[in-house]
Parts: sequence; C-alpha cells; structure tokens
Amino acid sequence: MIFSSDNWAGAHPAIAENLMAHAGGYAPAYGMSELDQKVQRRLSEIFEKEVAVFFVGTGTAANSLALSSANRAGGIAFCHREAHVNVDECGAPEFFSHGARLRPVDGARGKMAPATLEAEIRRFPPEDVHGGQPMAVTLTQATESGTVYALEEIDAIASIAKSHKLPLHMDGARFANALVHLDATPAEMTWKRGVELLSFGGTKNGCWCAEALILFDLSKAQEMHFLRKRAAQLFSKSRFVAAQFDAYLAGDLWLNLARHANAMAQRLADGISASASSRLAWAPDANEVFVVLKHDVAARLRQHGAVFYDWHVPHDLAGSLAEDEGLYRLVTSFATLADGVDRFIDAC
Amino acid sequence: MIFSSDNWAGAHPAIAENLMAHAGGYAPAYGMSELDQKVQRRLSEIFEKEVAVFFVGTGTAANSLALSSANRAGGIAFCHREAHVNVDECGAPEFFSHGARLRPVDGARGKMAPATLEAEIRRFPPEDVHGGQPMAVTLTQATESGTVYALEEIDAIASIAKSHKLPLHMDGARFANALVHLDATPAEMTWKRGVELLSFGGTKNGCWCAEALILFDLSKAQEMHFLRKRAAQLFSKSRFVAAQFDAYLAGDLWLNLARHANAMAQRLADGISASASSRLAWAPDANEVFVVLKHDVAARLRQHGAVFYDWHVPHDLAGSLAEDEGLYRLVTSFATLADGVDRFIDAC
Amino acid sequence: MIFSSDNWAGAHPAIAENLMAHAGGYAPAYGMSELDQKVQRRLSEIFEKEVAVFFVGTGTAANSLALSSANRAGGIAFCHREAHVNVDECGAPEFFSHGARLRPVDGARGKMAPATLEAEIRRFPPEDVHGGQPMAVTLTQATESGTVYALEEIDAIASIAKSHKLPLHMDGARFANALVHLDATPAEMTWKRGVELLSFGGTKNGCWCAEALILFDLSKAQEMHFLRKRAAQLFSKSRFVAAQFDAYLAGDLWLNLARHANAMAQRLADGISASASSRLAWAPDANEVFVVLKHDVAARLRQHGAVFYDWHVPHDLAGSLAEDEGLYRLVTSFATLADGVDRFIDAC
Amino acid sequence: MIFSSDNWAGAHPAIAENLMAHAGGYAPAYGMSELDQKVQRRLSEIFEKEVAVFFVGTGTAANSLALSSANRAGGIAFCHREAHVNVDECGAPEFFSHGARLRPVDGARGKMAPATLEAEIRRFPPEDVHGGQPMAVTLTQATESGTVYALEEIDAIASIAKSHKLPLHMDGARFANALVHLDATPAEMTWKRGVELLSFGGTKNGCWCAEALILFDLSKAQEMHFLRKRAAQLFSKSRFVAAQFDAYLAGDLWLNLARHANAMAQRLADGISASASSRLAWAPDANEVFVVLKHDVAARLRQHGAVFYDWHVPHDLAGSLAEDEGLYRLVTSFATLADGVDRFIDAC
Repeated sequence: MIFSSDNWAGAHPAIAENLMAHAGGYAPAYGMSELDQKVQRRLSEIFEKEVAVFFVGTGTAANSLALSSANRAGGIAFCHREAHVNVDECGAPEFFSHGARLRPVDGARGKMAPATLEAEIRRFPPEDVHGGQPMAVTLTQATESGTVYALEEIDAIASIAKSHKLPLHMDGARFANALVHLDATPAEMTWKRGVELLSFGGTKNGCWCAEALILFDLSKAQEMHFLRKRAAQLFSKSRFVAAQFDAYLAGDLWLNLARHANAMAQRLADGISASASSRLAWAPDANEVFVVLKHDVAARLRQHGAVFYDWHVPHDLAGSLAEDEGLYRLVTSFATLADGVDRFIDAC
Repeated sequence: MIFSSDNWAGAHPAIAENLMAHAGGYAPAYGMSELDQKVQRRLSEIFEKEVAVFFVGTGTAANSLALSSANRAGGIAFCHREAHVNVDECGAPEFFSHGARLRPVDGARGKMAPATLEAEIRRFPPEDVHGGQPMAVTLTQATESGTVYALEEIDAIASIAKSHKLPLHMDGARFANALVHLDATPAEMTWKRGVELLSFGGTKNGCWCAEALILFDLSKAQEMHFLRKRAAQLFSKSRFVAAQFDAYLAGDLWLNLARHANAMAQRLADGISASASSRLAWAPDANEVFVVLKHDVAARLRQHGAVFYDWHVPHDLAGSLAEDEGLYRLVTSFATLADGVDRFIDAC
Repeated sequence: MIFSSDNWAGAHPAIAENLMAHAGGYAPAYGMSELDQKVQRRLSEIFEKEVAVFFVGTGTAANSLALSSANRAGGIAFCHREAHVNVDECGAPEFFSHGARLRPVDGARGKMAPATLEAEIRRFPPEDVHGGQPMAVTLTQATESGTVYALEEIDAIASIAKSHKLPLHMDGARFANALVHLDATPAEMTWKRGVELLSFGGTKNGCWCAEALILFDLSKAQEMHFLRKRAAQLFSKSRFVAAQFDAYLAGDLWLNLARHANAMAQRLADGISASASSRLAWAPDANEVFVVLKHDVAARLRQHGAVFYDWHVPHDLAGSLAEDEGLYRLVTSFATLADGVDRFIDAC
Repeated sequence: MIFSSDNWAGAHPAIAENLMAHAGGYAPAYGMSELDQKVQRRLSEIFEKEVAVFFVGTGTAANSLALSSANRAGGIAFCHREAHVNVDECGAPEFFSHGARLRPVDGARGKMAPATLEAEIRRFPPEDVHGGQPMAVTLTQATESGTVYALEEIDAIASIAKSHKLPLHMDGARFANALVHLDATPAEMTWKRGVELLSFGGTKNGCWCAEALILFDLSKAQEMHFLRKRAAQLFSKSRFVAAQFDAYLAGDLWLNLARHANAMAQRLADGISASASSRLAWAPDANEVFVVLKHDVAARLRQHGAVFYDWHVPHDLAGSLAEDEGLYRLVTSFATLADGVDRFIDAC
C-alpha cells in the first residue's frame, strides 16, 4: 500500500538485469559507446524522426537544460502554476537559465488554459524592456494533477507558442503514462504537435536513473553538448543509463509498465468511487489519483500501513471540501500490486 | 590493452550485484532510504568522524558544488594548472559559482608548489576590489599526473590555505588510489590535514555512477542540500547510488580494487623501464602511467589493439623529448588484467 | 502637465551646480575622494548610526545588490506583487542572485498584508529542499501605488521577517517622499524598525543619477565591495555621484523637494476629488496619484498636452470601474509647478 | 603632478556646462529623449555606419555586456594577459556571462601575439566538450601598456577571430587616445577591420560618466536592450549621459582632448629619455608612460607631491631591471598641465 510516489519503487527486473549484463568489458566513455548509440537510434525510431538525445541524471536536469537552451536575457518561461519546474525544483530552471523567470499560468486540473496563456504572454510586449521577454512555453504531460492533455489541447498550446515564436517544451517525467492513456504515438504527442524539446523520463516508470533530454530541432544539439557538460550532467560511464533505456525501450516494455501503472490507478479510482466514505477529487487519466478523504479515514489507512501524501487544495476546489475532509494524492507505478490496491479500498 | 581511461571499465561484479539485489521493494526517495543512511554512517565510520554526505552524479558535480559552497563575489579558487576543474569540466565550477574564477598554480608533476600558491594568493590582497578575492584552494589526490601528494605536502598546502582563511577542497576522483599508495587512513589524508570538502569518487574505481561530496564541516551541510537540489543533482531513487557505495565500501573492496589498479600501473611502469625502446616520463604513484614513446612505437601498439591517449607535454618536460617521440598516458583500473599489461609491454 | 514619471525631470539647479563646482581638480577614484567620504559621513549623521554606503548607478542595481547580498541557494525573496523588483527590473534581482526567485505577496494599495506574507513564508519550511528556501523580505517605501507604510505597518512586516531570520530590505526609490509624509526621522523609518538594507534613491527627487545602497549591518560591507564591483557598478569618477548627494543632503533640500512633490500630488488629488467628471482611485500619501478618468476625459487631457500613463487595474479595484473608465497614474516631482497642476484640473 | 590615473581628473568644462544646460525641463526617460537620439545619430555619423548605441555606467559594464552578448555554454573569450577584463574587473565579465572564462594570451607590450592567439584557440576544438568552446576575442585599444595596435595588427587579430567564427570586441576605454595616435578614422579602426562590438569610453577622456557599448551588427541590438536592463545599466535620466557625449563629440573636442593627453605623455617620455637617472621601459603610443626609476628617485618624486603607481614587471622585462629599480606607470589626461610634467622631469 505504498502510494507515496512512483519514485519509491526500485527498478524493473528486466532493466536491473540488463544493467548487470553490461557491467563487464570496456566501452568508450561520455556517451560514445555502441550501446549509447544504439539507444539513440532506438529513440529516433520510436519518434519516427532523427532526434538528438542527451542522457542526464534527473528530470530536473532535463527540464532545466531545455529551458536554458531557450534562454534570453530577462527571459520568461510560461508554465502551469502547479508544474514541477515551478514548485518542486528549488529554482534549478532559474539557476540553469541565469535568473530567467517562470511565469505561472492557471488552468483547471493541472493544464494551462490557452486563453490565460495567451493573456500572460501578451503582458510582455517585445518593446517593453522593463518587464522582460518571453522565451519558452513548457507543459507537463502527464500533468502534476494526474491528467493528460488531449492532442487538441496540446495543439492549442503549441499554436500560441508558435504565434509568439516561442519554443515549446514538454516535461515528460510521466511521458509513457500519458502516451498509453491517449493511445497515440510518441511522434503524434510531440513534434507533430509542435513540441521542440522533450524531457523523456524513464525513472518513474521502472528505471533506476534514466532521463533524457530529446531535441527535435537538431540545430540546437551542438550547443546542448556544452550546456549539459557545463551543468555536470555528462556521465563518464554513460552506458549505465544506456543499458537501462535499452531494456526499457525493448519491445513494448515501457508502454506495458505504464499501462499497468495506469490500470492500477483506475482500479484505485473505481474503488474509491464506489466507496461510501470517500470520493475522487477528479478522475485520473494517468497514474496519480487525487482523492477526498475524511481526516479520520486517512489516519486509519495510514495505521493500516498505507503511505501517501496530503495534498494542497487547488483554488478551484477550495469550496468543495468539508471541514473534516482533506485532499490526498495516491500514486501507482509499475510495481503496484492489485492486491495492495484492493486492501487499500477495503480499508477505506 | 585498454589504457584509455579508468572510466572505460564497467562496474565490478560485487557492485553490480548489489544494485540488482536492491532493485525490488519500495524505499523513500531523495536520499531518505535506510540504505542511504547506512552508507552515510559507513562513511562516518571510515573517516572516523561524523561527516555530511551528498551523493551526486559526476565528479564534476562534486567539485563544482564544493567550490560553489565556498563562493564569494569575485571569488578566485586556486588549483594546479593541470587540475581537472581547470581543464576538463567545461567551466562547470565557474558556472556553479556564478562566474568565480580558477587561478592556475604551477608545480611539477601535477602538484601545486607551495611557494607559488602563496605568491598567487598574495596577488589578491583583501583591499583590492579590482582583482577579486580568494575563496578556496583545491588540490587533486591522486593528481592528474598520476602522482600523489605526500601527507607533508598536503600539510604545506593546507597551512597556506589556513593562513589566508581559505577552505581546502580535495578532488578525490581517484581517492582510493592515492590512499593505498600512501598507506594512510582516510582521516589522515583529509580532515586531519585540514581538508574541509572532499569529492569522494567511486566511479573510476569500480562503480557505475557513485560520487559523493563529503563535508567535514557540518555547519555547511544545510545550505548544501539546497545547492545540490538547485543543481539538479538530487536523485529520486538515490538508493541506486547507495547500493553501489554499500558494496564498494563493504570490507576492503574499494581499497583492494585500488591496490589492483595501482599494481597494474606499477607492472606497466616496470615493463616500460626495462624496455629498450620506451621510457617513463616520470614514476607513477597511482594508476596513471605517463610514458615517452617513439611515434612509430605508439602507432604499432595501437595497431596491436592498445588504446591510450596522446598527452600534451608539460612545460618542465618540454626540452626532454626527441622529435620522433611523444608523451602518452596509460590508465589502469580495477578491471585491468596482468595479461593485457604484459602483452602491451611485449609489443613495445 | 508632465505627470508621466518623476524621472522625466532633470536635475535640481543646486545639484547641477554642485556637480559643476566639483568638475575641476583631481581626486582619488573609485569612491576614495574626500567628497565621497564626506557624503558617507553625512549619511551616517542623517541615519544617527554608522552606515556603509555604496553608490550605484540605478535603483535596480541597489535593489539587486541588496538581494544578492542576502542570497542562498534556491533562495526566495518576498515582495509585494506590484513591487518594482517584481515587475519592472527585467529579472535583474534574479540575475544578480543567480536564479533566486521573487515570491509575490498580495495586499491592498501596494502594501504586503502581514498575514499573507506569513502564510507565504510558511509555504517553504526549511526541511523541504524541493521548494527552495526563504532568503529575504523586501518592501517598497513609498509603494508603487503611491501609498506609504505607517511605522507600525513596517513593524508588522519586520517582525515576521525577524521571526523567520530573514533580512529586511527597503526599496527607497522614493524614500524622501515617504519620510516627509510620515514626518519621521530616517532612523525611525529604517533600522529602528528592523530594516537591514536600504536602497536610498536620489534620482527621482532631483538628482541626475544618485542612488546608494545603505547597509545598517556593517558586517556585510566587505563582501558588498566585491558584489558591487563584480556587478560593474563601481564608478571611477565616483565623486560625480558624491557631488550630487552632497548638495541633495545639504540642509533640508532633499526633504523640501519631496515635500514639494507630495504637495503637488495632494493639490492634484484635491482638484480631482472636487471634479465632477473624475475621481481618485485611492488617496495618495506621496507623489503618485491614481485616478479614475473617463476614457474621453483622458484623451482630452492628452490633447491639451498632459502626459501620463494608463495603469493596470489591481484585482481589488476590478469591479469598481465603469466600462467607459480607465485607471491612470499621475506622478509629480520636485519640478512640478502648481500652475501645471491647476491647468490639468481645469481641463478635467 | 597627478599621474595616478586619467580617472582622477573630473570633467572638462564644456562637458560639465552642457550637463548644466540640460538640467532643466522634462524629457522621456530610459534613453528615449531627443538628446539621447541625437547622440546616437552623431555616433553613426562618426562611425560612417548605422550603429546601435547603449549607454552604460562603467567600462566594465560595456566590456561585460559585450562578452555576455557573445556568450556560449562553457564559453572562452581570448584576451591579452594584462587586459583590463582579465585583471581589473573583479570577475564581472565572467559573472555577466554566467561563468564563461577568459583565456589569457601573451604578447609583448600589451598586444596579443597573433600566433599565440591562434594556438590558444586551437586548444579548444569544437568536438571536445570537456575543454569548453571559444566564444569571442577581445583586444584593448589603446592597450593597458600604453601601446596602440597598428591597423595591420588589428587585421591580424581580426583575421584569426573570423577564421574561427568568433566575434571581435574592442575595449576602447582609451579609444580616442589610440585613434589620434594612429591618425585613423573611427571606422578604419573598428568595423572596417572586423570589430563587431566596441566599448566606447568617454570617462577617462574628460567626461564624468559616459561609456557606451556600440554594436556594429544591428541584429544583436534587440537582445542587448534586455541584457543591459537586466544588468541594471539602463539609466532613467539617460540624458545625463547623452549631454556629456553631446559636448564630448561636438566638433573635435574628444579628439583634441586625447591629443593633449597623448602630447603630455610624449612630453613626459621625452623628459625621461633625456634624464640621467631614469629611463623609459618602452615608448608610449598613447597617454600611459611606463618608466624605470630607481626606488629612491621614485620616493623623492612622491615627496615632491607626484602621485603615480608602482607597476608589476611583465615577464619579458623581468631581467632588465636592476635591484634598486622599479617599474612605474604615469598616466596623463585632458587635464594634465605641461607645467606639472616639467616639474616632474625636473624632480627626477
């Protein structure tokens, strides 16, 4: 009954074994090994396009490097108010971008409202040097609220970014979970919609430490090599990341792991919906379920060994909770067992 | 016959296996797992002192965070001219330190000459705002020249740093190799000599990706948590680093691996000394051997499958090479086989 | 009828003449001249305390250096949402502070509401590395809304800052205007209330280019010398700033200029209150008047030669404007003539 | 007998008077006044080309902004070892450029030796991510050694910069002094030679505080507006700089002031050459004279009221001084009187 976060799980056996399998022998360092190259080719295949791939250590690094690649003096990047870059990265995007700023954009259920985004960008006309200048738009897919932008919703954001000549970045820490929810191809969810930079996460979905920044615009790749190295994110034994991705991307493992996590989230949601004492705050699309529980129910669940976090109540939900209720987040992963879900529901 | 770098090897079996062993189950993220705590206690035991341990992804990250922790406005850190921070980190220390500068200090065989260090620091008196202000001294142990500072040599550097109230950092990417050469304890080689910050490397000595910044001054630990997170170096599944260090530091594995690498370097050195066609540039202390080879010998070795790098000739060696000679670097590791060394010598 | 900004005026004759008077002769550069020293002593006298004075070129520089002096990794400074640092400095505070962030705090009429400030600071508990860490509180006196914090209101903010061990900075771009409104002493409005760093502005009140960062905590002065120089804000012919302040601070000139500007604002406010067609958005305390005008009245005024800016409507005023009305800002200065004010009122 | 620095003088009367003349009245702030525009047109006229002009507060700001405009990740700018950017700006160029580095290039008498520059740039091939990447070349005209690059010498540097696709910056803190020495036009000494960015200094040659960054490549101007504002270098009452330049650039005042300073330097040089006790270290081209004096002569001169600085002995002069001799720098300016020069010579 561990629903605290998908990063509390370890590594999927197939991934751990592949790492073991590549432990011996010698290989060129700093991303030049055959295995590194193989994974990069595999990603180009998956995205149906030649892409530039940069392994990094954390999703925060991928996001921050993406934004630093788009940086301008006095730059402003637009993101959802609850986005990971805005609330959970300790100012890393700002540090990597030498003081660029993130401008929060509101919108229901973790998704930027297009009209609000447009209005926010317009607050910074190019001739006003005092306010600073827009530099990028970044969206999170799946969102921090467990929802997933539909393809048309990505189109709406991308179209605004494009009209202001701003690059569009996607924080895909839970990329696979979003993808299987939409039943779309990786290309359809990214560059075909106008996404130029992608943080492609593997860690939350069964890897130990496998994150990649993917550039669909190859003209920015040369500079990124230096940005990554300067940020101390170029691993010498880079094949330890490559080996994880190699197993992760073999066949449909990555998609299947995400399907499992999403299904477990749905099972949780269904159980809670059917429960007398608890309810969903909103329906989950991916592997995060937000539930409204009475405080004493939450306490009882924790006594039974369930692990999960309190969550802050977003503005648009504020009025809808009773005094004895709280909002809680439940996260499932590749490692979540149906049995644990069912025990949780039973204990509700 | 792979002597290109110790980071071309993969992971030692005991380390890879321990990672495998910890793949299952759940554990708190971001360094809060029991395994993380166990490794930190083990390091305090090894250093005979409570230390603050920060796992990071690369040696560059450890070095850069150490220097950023010591940073001042217009700050200047003093290092050997050939130090990794100065020549091989793409400006990461300067980036992490917001434009602080590294001031190269000369000295034979990769070691800063104390008198030169003293003179360089004195160039920046505290009342001269134009030149900037000294902020730290950093030494590399073992050095980039394969030599090792004797304990008294560290004392000499530390005493200068202390007299100018500058923190002393040690880049220990090859810490174990230096330690077994000196036959000293970790405490004797570090804080007992005045070292305040240590980059403790495991990657080059048999780990996949295991680097730690160790602070002997616990008062700087709280800020370092934020410095590390802001630098995107806080791993969510931090136990994947912990599991490596756990095996690495169990018993004497880490020391034995270093002893092996050093012994292989000595075997190389002995063979080359005995060779008619080649000679040592200088005697190795740790696991890097610098040799003078005739260009045609180097070419022949490479045809036989040996892999190693050309090296730039340091100033004080400049006159001593013939026109048909070059300087080359040979690096051994935990994975180097005596057989490969012997074949290399035979092919010389 | 120039009410666009107090920085559209030039320099007061006494100040321009003193600059002229000091044009000849030689003097040590970089702030070491006798005149520089004299002004620093004068400021210590005015503040009834030995202060450290750093001349800089712009208010943005003073604010940004103050915040950089308080900087921590992942640092967050709290300011009013409409504060100059937050909306008009193109990210300079963030740039000077290497990516620190400003956290907007709401409150009516340009003043942070203490309870909101407290709540915002509490969102960042010291053990949560993901969110970043509070580093400073900054308030603007007079505010960007033309209001002035009463002494007890400063106390309320200072007490919160102190309870969280955060330094308190005051952006005093219009320091004199606030001071004469409160009829307080400089000491009473600053360090006696807990202000540690002050941006002391002279430019908007009759100088050409005279801004000073004043530190009440002398222990931070040595580092500030390097912070300022590194930020390219140390003038060689520093006495050109000193000469301006020398005249500005002689006798009560600076206070009298501010009294005049405030009186002109009050005259404007009185006229508008008495007008049939227009009204005050709120009562001015200092030299900025915010008025609600019908669009056609505003257009007519501009046709008559009046210069002033449209202003964005703050949240708490949103409902109170009719469709044919707009919010406008009128700024007076030492150079504003009563005749211009009266002509403006007549044309309303 | 003030020969300490050209920044110990105040302002030329014509410049101080023009500032006085523009003290009254209103004008748009932030560089939008008619006077600002007039000066920008005048500079375009002087340079025979439309240029983008950015007033800033210090030469350090102009240099640092120029380099930040050329910045790349892990960037390296090449300059003479004695260049002001390298030794006298407290790391401002590195701070403005987020940790970019300056790479010193040696060469006699303050001028980079082209072959050395070429060799230094070649140390950083584009495929080596570890070393960082070249980003700019910057030369100082006149140099910190009081010499002036001949036009062909600028060509040699520019040609190397161009072959590596690096922008060429000129630090013209003493631009006028170099120009009149060469008897060249501003265009001939800059963009016609390949200079893309120019720090155009007025302060050392008779202004109070008048420095401009001039871009010959207009495509970089839009970004520079934000770089300057973010660096807190955009003055509100910008016309106080414009008024200085307006007088400075009227007719040939600026050139005549430089001619005077250079002539005074030559008069010093001639007197010293003719003196029995002293000698020139090398012949001056502009307004800085480097002399070798016996220590007791230097002491006597100072007792007579002469003010000048000790100077460090460059490598290539090291052997040529006797034990009782020192190297000293004498700087002349628009304000230097022939009488003071003659008294200095008499006292030698």
